[in-house]
Amino acid sequence: MHVLIIGAAGMVGRKLAERLTKDGTLAGRAVEAMTLVDVVTPDAPVGFAGSVTLETADLSAPGAAEKLVAGRPDVIFHLAAIVSGEAELDFEKGYRINLDGTRYLFEAIRLAHIEDGYRPRVVFTSSIAVVGAPLPFPIPDEFHTTPLTSYGTQKAICELLLSDYSRKGFFDGIGIRLPTICIRPGKPNKAASGFFSSILREPLVGQEAVLPVSDDVRHWHASPRSAVGFLIHAATIDVEQVGPRRNLSMPGVSATVGDQIEALRRIAGDKAVKLIRREPDETIMRICAGWAPGFDAKRARDLGFTADASFDEIIRIHIEDELGGSL
Amino acid sequence: MHVLIIGAAGMVGRKLAERLTKDGTLAGRAVEAMTLVDVVTPDAPVGFAGSVTLETADLSAPGAAEKLVAGRPDVIFHLAAIVSGEAELDFEKGYRINLDGTRYLFEAIRLAHIEDGYRPRVVFTSSIAVVGAPLPFPIPDEFHTTPLTSYGTQKAICELLLSDYSRKGFFDGIGIRLPTICIRPGKPNKAASGFFSSILREPLVGQEAVLPVSDDVRHWHASPRSAVGFLIHAATIDVEQVGPRRNLSMPGVSATVGDQIEALRRIAGDKAVKLIRREPDETIMRICAGWAPGFDAKRARDLGFTADASFDEIIRIHIEDELGGSL
Repeated sequence: MHVLIIGAAGMVGRKLAERLTKDGTLAGRAVEAMTLVDVVTPDAPVGFAGSVTLETADLSAPGAAEKLVAGRPDVIFHLAAIVSGEAELDFEKGYRINLDGTRYLFEAIRLAHIEDGYRPRVVFTSSIAVVGAPLPFPIPDEFHTTPLTSYGTQKAICELLLSDYSRKGFFDGIGIRLPTICIRPGKPNKAASGFFSSILREPLVGQEAVLPVSDDVRHWHASPRSAVGFLIHAATIDVEQVGPRRNLSMPGVSATVGDQIEALRRIAGDKAVKLIRREPDETIMRICAGWAPGFDAKRARDLGFTADASFDEIIRIHIEDELGGSL
Repeated sequence: MHVLIIGAAGMVGRKLAERLTKDGTLAGRAVEAMTLVDVVTPDAPVGFAGSVTLETADLSAPGAAEKLVAGRPDVIFHLAAIVSGEAELDFEKGYRINLDGTRYLFEAIRLAHIEDGYRPRVVFTSSIAVVGAPLPFPIPDEFHTTPLTSYGTQKAICELLLSDYSRKGFFDGIGIRLPTICIRPGKPNKAASGFFSSILREPLVGQEAVLPVSDDVRHWHASPRSAVGFLIHAATIDVEQVGPRRNLSMPGVSATVGDQIEALRRIAGDKAVKLIRREPDETIMRICAGWAPGFDAKRARDLGFTADASFDEIIRIHIEDELGGSL
């Protein structure tokens, strides 16, 4: 089977390619070829036995989607997007990349379907940003999408397109609403949500981290390893079981900042917790107030999607996958 | 004030222009100019004291939206769309007219806003087709949009765009999800939902009508007069009261086909009811099973939108507005 990953240079895309390399199979079939695409050239996964094609492409550029579909990949993971903050600052770019780019991909597949019956599995990463305050807790599967950002709007629109193109039989789409990925490896970034990761990631290696919100802020998390697991499962499940509602809120861990800190204390001790410096930031607190506290995710769980059991597990996964297994 | 009606040759657009002519004002201001646009030239409303401009334009054609926005109308009613059946048969046309056409309009307004601060009220007619079975009854305001047609998908996408463009301050948008309009005046048509109107409209003038479904089919209705009332109210209400969730399920009358028939009996007698010929049609029954039985519409009612009190009233409105006031 031939797997295409669009957005392969990102953190989740990279880990997905690594996982496919390790597994060697997807949905019970050998992965013989991978095409990895991003706006910057992705790295080839180390040790992959099949053929790898690395491409630099912007999905929103004319002809880019057609070129990617020309090789008729069996499974397409579409992870490419500009992030929430950038889509909010640059309205035109957000719609061009996050909406038009996705629509060009779907259209290219539709035209290939008309040509020769091509009908790939398409796994699309949506986001919990499709919902917006006021929100119940937990958020039921049937809650409406009322995004409060352009990024969330673009993801919600792509979800609708995914369902309609799937209903018409042009491809078999599954949209997965990813929780906030925690602990995101790498350096601190400027994202408003960055502190959820940094208050754990930095103290685990003896560095200070800033906490800009109060301990009672509740949010919805999944480890990078779980996120990759969702993608693999979405490529594997029987779409008939899913029915026409193709977009699923993924399971996760609903935790307050206080819960996160207590998990850190259990695993890395008081010494680590003392490295968290409280610097309340009214702007970030206001933004946070609109975020999802957690989802019911019953449909996804019933369909076999599984997340981390606790925040302790989320921290342990980070230690295993990013810190060589020990502190 | 200058009012632009896009889709002015349609039944609702025509009645809206007539109502504005009769009222002479909108949101407390005199209506001095109307621009009426459609893909076929609309009729000028009889007796309008202000200036009328009639235009033939396809919103999905390059430059059409910019031209309509150039006159900086204060209120824009966007009613133009191809209907559900056509959008289902012609996938490309549906997306071009119903999605791209609307997006071009929104973009033209955004660019005008950037140019000179232009910020009109935009009233967009959405549809109950944004939801799809399985559906609760009544459908709550917070129920997710899971359309089962391309038409419903296109309307749901435009709703999301409307909210985002409004949130960003490019215009003040209100999206109204119209119930099925009943009794639709005119001749029987091929729409699967056509029987809801024809089983009343034809017998009221002594003609036979075909009923293809069973008496217990429940659906969600509003008279043409109510639909126009919704549009006027949407152009009038304080958007601050509405908040960021700009799309509202309109109130209506939830009735079974049996309820409709009993209302007909009360108003026009057994003689009229006997003109309904039962010819069960499995295809239409299957399509009907996915339709909305009725909405809670609490938000819209709290915001002052009002619908017909009963099916008897819906029939009486038809007699007043279409049959000269008596049978």
